[in-house]
Amino acid sequence: MLQNIRVVLVNTSHPGNIGATARAMKTMGLSRLVLVQPEDFPSLVAEARASGATDVLESAQVVDSLEQALVGCNLVLGTSARDRRIPWPLLDPRECGETCVEQLEQGGEVALVFGREYAGLTNEELQRCQFHVHIPSDPSFGSLNLAAAVQVLTYEVRMSWLAARGRPTKMEKVETTAMLGTQPATMDEMELYYAHLEQTLVDIGFLDPEKPRHLMARLRKLYGRSAVSRLEMNILRGILTETQKAARGEARKRGEE
Amino acid sequence: MLQNIRVVLVNTSHPGNIGATARAMKTMGLSRLVLVQPEDFPSLVAEARASGATDVLESAQVVDSLEQALVGCNLVLGTSARDRRIPWPLLDPRECGETCVEQLEQGGEVALVFGREYAGLTNEELQRCQFHVHIPSDPSFGSLNLAAAVQVLTYEVRMSWLAARGRPTKMEKVETTAMLGTQPATMDEMELYYAHLEQTLVDIGFLDPEKPRHLMARLRKLYGRSAVSRLEMNILRGILTETQKAARGEARKRGEE
Repeated sequence: MLQNIRVVLVNTSHPGNIGATARAMKTMGLSRLVLVQPEDFPSLVAEARASGATDVLESAQVVDSLEQALVGCNLVLGTSARDRRIPWPLLDPRECGETCVEQLEQGGEVALVFGREYAGLTNEELQRCQFHVHIPSDPSFGSLNLAAAVQVLTYEVRMSWLAARGRPTKMEKVETTAMLGTQPATMDEMELYYAHLEQTLVDIGFLDPEKPRHLMARLRKLYGRSAVSRLEMNILRGILTETQKAARGEARKRGEE
Repeated sequence: MLQNIRVVLVNTSHPGNIGATARAMKTMGLSRLVLVQPEDFPSLVAEARASGATDVLESAQVVDSLEQALVGCNLVLGTSARDRRIPWPLLDPRECGETCVEQLEQGGEVALVFGREYAGLTNEELQRCQFHVHIPSDPSFGSLNLAAAVQVLTYEVRMSWLAARGRPTKMEKVETTAMLGTQPATMDEMELYYAHLEQTLVDIGFLDPEKPRHLMARLRKLYGRSAVSRLEMNILRGILTETQKAARGEARKRGEE
């Protein structure tokens, strides 16, 4: 699905930014790069900054006009600074990601268009886009590096795409957790732990059985919110058992004095 | 509020990435950069890539160790590749942004830690982080440029921060928290605790100093995710001190046999 989204760079000055864009795209699973009149391409600088994403550079399409770059697209989104004279439907990067994925799910082709390093897109170019996208940067220092902007927008596309697939990342997380024996301890196991902990604190002389309540309540609060796993429970119980052994040594010694 | 979040770069090789990081931070309203043993800094290359964010570079703090970089922090998040041997609480960038802003709203200090360009963070460094953050990149080409990763994470922090500014402030919650002495322990207090815990476990014979790593990592993970308060920290330290006293009794007794 992500092969139906293209990144379009218009009149890029620095080949390093083209290479860094290729890398940013590939990390997010995108492969289709279109360059409108790049100033310096192909370039060894671009290859160096692509850092292994050379396939994206090699298959990049170089064209003469934005119009050519957008052939076959159903949805075009253009990056824009906040204050434009012409009001236009404006999306933040998250909405941009969602809008792209909705279009891709319907079998459409999508273009994300990025302007020149210093001047951005012209008003005419922006008018070829159905939506403008603004990254909500600090107004006093608002200009992201070109490839950094590509990274943010393609990241949001990937997040939406993963969400649409049903969050496989979370699945992996759950499976890993289960495999490694990190199921949460049950409430009765927790109660056995608290009883063991309380007895141990009495044994080492930290807890006065005459007024025990406050301390155990605090410890219950701490461990209660920690979602202690069975593995961790075993460790904590093991520590208590060894502590009790040490305490019995102390007690015996005292008895001998 | 965003001034209480620091970006920590560990052993960065390329000064260009430091400059690009400064720029990424500043576009998202962040200003505090800490460099742990950078290979080449200060540098003209860094300045060029900062592209106007020179104030961030000039006020950057250079330190010798990650420990120094984290002094005063209440929450530490470290970037990580997906497959780590030791499972750890793992956040995606959006959850990372939300977690950071929750901590900032409570008056806490936050660190986002980024590792070396090729090797990332070591397991030991990752164990100093309460949470790991993974950018859900394409598994077949997963490695983002360092500054691009900084851009994505600081973008998510800013998105959460902007969302939080629309919500009513949590003044009541903060005041209640302060009154009950439940401010979170700082990272350096947590480190003192871990050192005390480790020594105590050796004293009671639960931890074999010959192969200590796995156990402490698991305990760090447990307490790291528990947001231990200062009050609780005092209790836990008190228990350790009493346990050590008990263990000394045991040791003396053994010596007498």
